[in-house]
Amino acid sequence: MTDSRPTIVTMIGDPCGIGPEIIAKAWASGEVHKHSKPVLLGSAAAMERAVGFAGLDLPVRVIESVDQLSDSSDVIEILDSGKLDINDVTLGEDNAICGQVCADWLDEAEQLAMSGEVAGVVMGPISSIAMKMADVLDKVIQVVPGSSYLFLISGPLRVMHVTDHIPLRQACDDISSDLVFDALKVMHARLEEWGISNPRIGVSGLNAHAFGVEDEEEIQPGVERAKAIGIDAKGPIAPDSIFRHCIEGVYDAVLAMLHDQGHIAVKTWGFVGNCALIIGPPYLQMSVAHGTAFDIVGKGTAHHEMIQTAMIQTASLAAGKGFI
Amino acid sequence: MTDSRPTIVTMIGDPCGIGPEIIAKAWASGEVHKHSKPVLLGSAAAMERAVGFAGLDLPVRVIESVDQLSDSSDVIEILDSGKLDINDVTLGEDNAICGQVCADWLDEAEQLAMSGEVAGVVMGPISSIAMKMADVLDKVIQVVPGSSYLFLISGPLRVMHVTDHIPLRQACDDISSDLVFDALKVMHARLEEWGISNPRIGVSGLNAHAFGVEDEEEIQPGVERAKAIGIDAKGPIAPDSIFRHCIEGVYDAVLAMLHDQGHIAVKTWGFVGNCALIIGPPYLQMSVAHGTAFDIVGKGTAHHEMIQTAMIQTASLAAGKGFI
Repeated sequence: MTDSRPTIVTMIGDPCGIGPEIIAKAWASGEVHKHSKPVLLGSAAAMERAVGFAGLDLPVRVIESVDQLSDSSDVIEILDSGKLDINDVTLGEDNAICGQVCADWLDEAEQLAMSGEVAGVVMGPISSIAMKMADVLDKVIQVVPGSSYLFLISGPLRVMHVTDHIPLRQACDDISSDLVFDALKVMHARLEEWGISNPRIGVSGLNAHAFGVEDEEEIQPGVERAKAIGIDAKGPIAPDSIFRHCIEGVYDAVLAMLHDQGHIAVKTWGFVGNCALIIGPPYLQMSVAHGTAFDIVGKGTAHHEMIQTAMIQTASLAAGKGFI
Repeated sequence: MTDSRPTIVTMIGDPCGIGPEIIAKAWASGEVHKHSKPVLLGSAAAMERAVGFAGLDLPVRVIESVDQLSDSSDVIEILDSGKLDINDVTLGEDNAICGQVCADWLDEAEQLAMSGEVAGVVMGPISSIAMKMADVLDKVIQVVPGSSYLFLISGPLRVMHVTDHIPLRQACDDISSDLVFDALKVMHARLEEWGISNPRIGVSGLNAHAFGVEDEEEIQPGVERAKAIGIDAKGPIAPDSIFRHCIEGVYDAVLAMLHDQGHIAVKTWGFVGNCALIIGPPYLQMSVAHGTAFDIVGKGTAHHEMIQTAMIQTASLAAGKGFI
């Protein structure tokens, strides 16, 4: 049996936050190694301190490239380009230096993904405030309407969004047959790449009960065009029913029209282990649903289940094995 | 100790559907009598047959008025004005006669509530198709924008809606400081009546992250006006966070701007026991979240937990004892 586990890099997140300690816990669990050959990217010194916060006894070893990985959960292996002086870390507080360092690490992770050295990138929790202080927030991949999409994963509830952070009125204007059709083509292709053959996609309506001008004149024709080229899309479906149907297994994923359709569903449902992809870049980049949790940094109490799920989910999708 | 249990009438719903059998089960549980003096309204013959469907052994007794109630879960007591010929019931299928009968029963229930003979009305599952066939759908209380509101109850998640079944674009236009202020006054007054003193009300925004023109220029000022008269309102809050906060107990209830904000939250969360009130009429009228379930009528398999919760919830609110 050949080893089909992909190499996945995890950027440790803002060193002032809980990223390093939850990643240390996830690493130590041994679970991540069952699904991937993980490697970290960031500061070895920050990870050494975080191992202590987490109450673990685990050495940290700096490697120069992924081919040096010993592939063991008994030693944390990290790519460390020396960007961070550990004395610049202000635990539990934002600072511009750490914001800048996160941007540098994201660049390095992108290069690894683009060169094919890793099959996917997991982004530990960063601080958008710190990155704004360093004027590098643009380094975090953003959704560009019409060319990239936010894809939320919350167990069996998976939602890609046609529109994101735009005014509701503008969303009503922007939703078109073309946009729906394009989004369905992108979504179908990605789901197939991830190992879901002939994925069943539910398409949400825009108005209550999917009853309105846009539902009839834009979404419905967009769905029909997708069906005509063999995509298993259904819709528009009443926005208040479709997410529960997805949870129950009727669809592999939902295409939502509005940011809050998907986000209300995911956040209200309360599943633990949410993560998010930006669909657009040519490589997998996963992020976790939580932030840096400055109030509990260094206490060892932060939960690592979400980042662990994100690391394993990324590996599963990169390997074409479908959702975990 | 005086008996503070209110008298609550339950209209048995469309006799072609599961209403009678689930109401028989709820009655037989004995739970409803702990919180209320229940009385049914509809057809004794339909209830006798439904008792059999439910596999129960319970007599059905027709009473002429609520003062004849023996107040026991060992005998089903029903007000039956003789409107229904049991031979007109087409189990599992819509028919106009039963639609008309439901309209008559709703009238009778309303009269009981308006005269003060009962403290609240529970509507068993009706068929809007049958009522449309009889051209009496207007007898079901509808939301009238600006003067009545849909209030959903799903355990700790309680949501009143400022707008209902209108196009999203129109909702953007309709949401005004006046509407938000009026809705908050109504909501505050009702919650106080129901026994929640100084209720904490979370107000949802309209746009993603409550960041937009309407959030700033209409919702925020509406909330401020409510606060100025002593209402504990907070908002606008990000629509994707507020419902989870409510579940966690941060608010007693949420004021939502759009039909689908509240409905996506309630339906996706998946709590069992949802029910709904229309805020507007001078008496409590509760309905259940499910329909007539024609496919399982007469099999005795229909779940009665929702209607039972609706009956007990109505009693608790009518007695000023807060939510169950």
